[in-house]
Amino acid sequence: MNAEIIGVGSELLLGQIANTDAQYLSQKLSELGINVYYHTVVGDNANRLKSVLALAHERSDLIITTGGLGPTMDDLTKETVAEFLELPMVLDQKSLDSIHCLFHSRKWPMSHSNDKQAYFPKGAVILPNDNGTAPGAIVEKDGRTYVILPGPPNELNPMFDQQVMPYLIRNAEYVIHSRVLKIYGRGESSVEEAIQDILAEQSNPTVAPLAKMGEVTLRLTVRCKKGENADALLDPVEAKIRDRLGDVVYGVDDDDLASVLIASLRAKGNTLALAESCTGGLVSKMVTDVPGSSDVFREGLVTYSNEAKSARLHVQTVPQYGAVSEETAAAMLEGLLAGSDADIGAAVTGIAGPGGGTDTKPIGLVYIAVGDRDSHHVYTCHFHRDRGRIRHAAALFTLDKLRRWLDK
Amino acid sequence: MNAEIIGVGSELLLGQIANTDAQYLSQKLSELGINVYYHTVVGDNANRLKSVLALAHERSDLIITTGGLGPTMDDLTKETVAEFLELPMVLDQKSLDSIHCLFHSRKWPMSHSNDKQAYFPKGAVILPNDNGTAPGAIVEKDGRTYVILPGPPNELNPMFDQQVMPYLIRNAEYVIHSRVLKIYGRGESSVEEAIQDILAEQSNPTVAPLAKMGEVTLRLTVRCKKGENADALLDPVEAKIRDRLGDVVYGVDDDDLASVLIASLRAKGNTLALAESCTGGLVSKMVTDVPGSSDVFREGLVTYSNEAKSARLHVQTVPQYGAVSEETAAAMLEGLLAGSDADIGAAVTGIAGPGGGTDTKPIGLVYIAVGDRDSHHVYTCHFHRDRGRIRHAAALFTLDKLRRWLDK
Repeated sequence: MNAEIIGVGSELLLGQIANTDAQYLSQKLSELGINVYYHTVVGDNANRLKSVLALAHERSDLIITTGGLGPTMDDLTKETVAEFLELPMVLDQKSLDSIHCLFHSRKWPMSHSNDKQAYFPKGAVILPNDNGTAPGAIVEKDGRTYVILPGPPNELNPMFDQQVMPYLIRNAEYVIHSRVLKIYGRGESSVEEAIQDILAEQSNPTVAPLAKMGEVTLRLTVRCKKGENADALLDPVEAKIRDRLGDVVYGVDDDDLASVLIASLRAKGNTLALAESCTGGLVSKMVTDVPGSSDVFREGLVTYSNEAKSARLHVQTVPQYGAVSEETAAAMLEGLLAGSDADIGAAVTGIAGPGGGTDTKPIGLVYIAVGDRDSHHVYTCHFHRDRGRIRHAAALFTLDKLRRWLDK
Repeated sequence: MNAEIIGVGSELLLGQIANTDAQYLSQKLSELGINVYYHTVVGDNANRLKSVLALAHERSDLIITTGGLGPTMDDLTKETVAEFLELPMVLDQKSLDSIHCLFHSRKWPMSHSNDKQAYFPKGAVILPNDNGTAPGAIVEKDGRTYVILPGPPNELNPMFDQQVMPYLIRNAEYVIHSRVLKIYGRGESSVEEAIQDILAEQSNPTVAPLAKMGEVTLRLTVRCKKGENADALLDPVEAKIRDRLGDVVYGVDDDDLASVLIASLRAKGNTLALAESCTGGLVSKMVTDVPGSSDVFREGLVTYSNEAKSARLHVQTVPQYGAVSEETAAAMLEGLLAGSDADIGAAVTGIAGPGGGTDTKPIGLVYIAVGDRDSHHVYTCHFHRDRGRIRHAAALFTLDKLRRWLDK
């Protein structure tokens, strides 16, 4: 089954938003073993949309539109699909009632234009919208399946997952399963080189590397018949890759460095504290992004000024060595653990830029101390690019070294 | 001039990445007054790409491709454009030299396949790539302009800005200028309602509202001839909107709540400290995202555990009132300012979920204290949706109330 996704909306063509709907749907369709051959974006213009629909009708079995289901005159996706398929628009009383009910319960003034959202191409399966006023629809015609979805991700995503997926799964013959291996501490080209032969002999599963924000992922994708055991095909390839790459593979699928660290802390019964200067709370933020982190994360001190380093962490190294120094990173960690009930900790101090760099201490220089009360290690790092990237890279490095400290 | 953007790459169709290149280019083209009517994404497949090119050739004057310029067999954009335009591929010795030079300087092993990146459709303007190995190209044929760009944003963006923009500007008759008004503290529909008449009578500039992550933006877009004064058209409309909406309009263009707060602190000669529980460092992270925030931001204490609240901030209210209470928020702020040299501060405590909610203290309940040593105010907030959204909403609220405290 070949699919294409048609995004409707001038805000996409003006670049006000990225087409994350197409990304979301593509991921989901790929999991179902449905090939997506095209994405198209077209504005709120009936003629152009109709020409795009005509093209899609010719080359695809499954056509998904996103956006253009609002109450205004500009919103014309449903009407244009109906016109293209030569189907009349008919009122769905149930949808009208639930739109009225929603407006009533939220005490919004109901405008007549909202009634428009209760009309659908004749014969459509209607997809109720729990998160907005625009229901979606599925229309079958001439051997094609048209799925009409609202644009806002918080409406589209649950509607697709809960209503469209089950509809499509009934007809799918093959299913695609993916497993993503998460890698930190080795670049993309070096990873590719190390597993060159595995990449070359790949067929089912395929193995696809992707570099993103300082990390590398390997996506293993297997195509199998419904009911077939995907893990039996994925497990040996994962084992082979792990054997080759070692502990730079830190997790799978939804794992990130913070969640793996939290899990490891919990497993070992240890607790964590952080002292941050240049990362300014980013490491703490990443740690506390993880639900349940309060079990093991005790505190994070963002000692941004020298006075705060001295008052909160009793750091006395700044006059002699500078705020950005190996000695200050170590003193921050020691001061942190002296005043905290946490078992292990990390301290980060560096120059994130754009100002503050010198010849001997350039932008991107970051000292990261990791350890416990008995011992610690200070890493000297040189990160690159802009303030955001330097802070992000420093945070990932810190999380990874904490994870490795626990694994020792 | 009508443009369309063709993204080439299976990673887009698999949903591994969003098509942010199309978003970036659309924004830039819109600023140049060039209408973008279509985005298309197609995989690494010569036949499908050729059919997409044929369609684009028919309906657009400017056709921009992104991606598919790498050294591997899969990368076929340049070759396919050449074939479609019936142009031979010719070697550019300068590009070949600079690719060799790059590999040499980075001590990468040079593979023969990289030579491919130095071949271009005959007659192309070659766009050197300072950030990668794949140069871009511009080809003029049959009254159409083809721009061929690499996929990675860190290569595409500067190549477009520094080389393609000047090329296009020479031919542009109209220019589009945009100004974005940033709004916090009022919902999208309420904003629209308040300026309904302004929206209705809009023509040049147009005014387009957009809601995003707890904020609302109004984009004013004006189309004028080269050299005409865009500000003279934008200023009166901005003034009218500000007059209507008041101080919920907190900034323009690249301003965000944190950068506006930092600017206001700097202007008033004040310094800031933060105490965070449920936001876990997010507010500090947002503040320190702003370059130069070290001038005014002193410290942030992420007192996640009750012990940290007591040890670091001398909070004694937890046994009686609980960690999530008006009293604890106030005590956190008082303890923070007592031990800090900052002039003003904020403290945040709440339940971000997914666990920890009760009937009387549900998920999303957050207390936020804002003030100085003389006085403060504690806000009781109920935020919605998931952990990420609740934390984000609490952080924005905190930044906004700090901004307003300074404006008093």
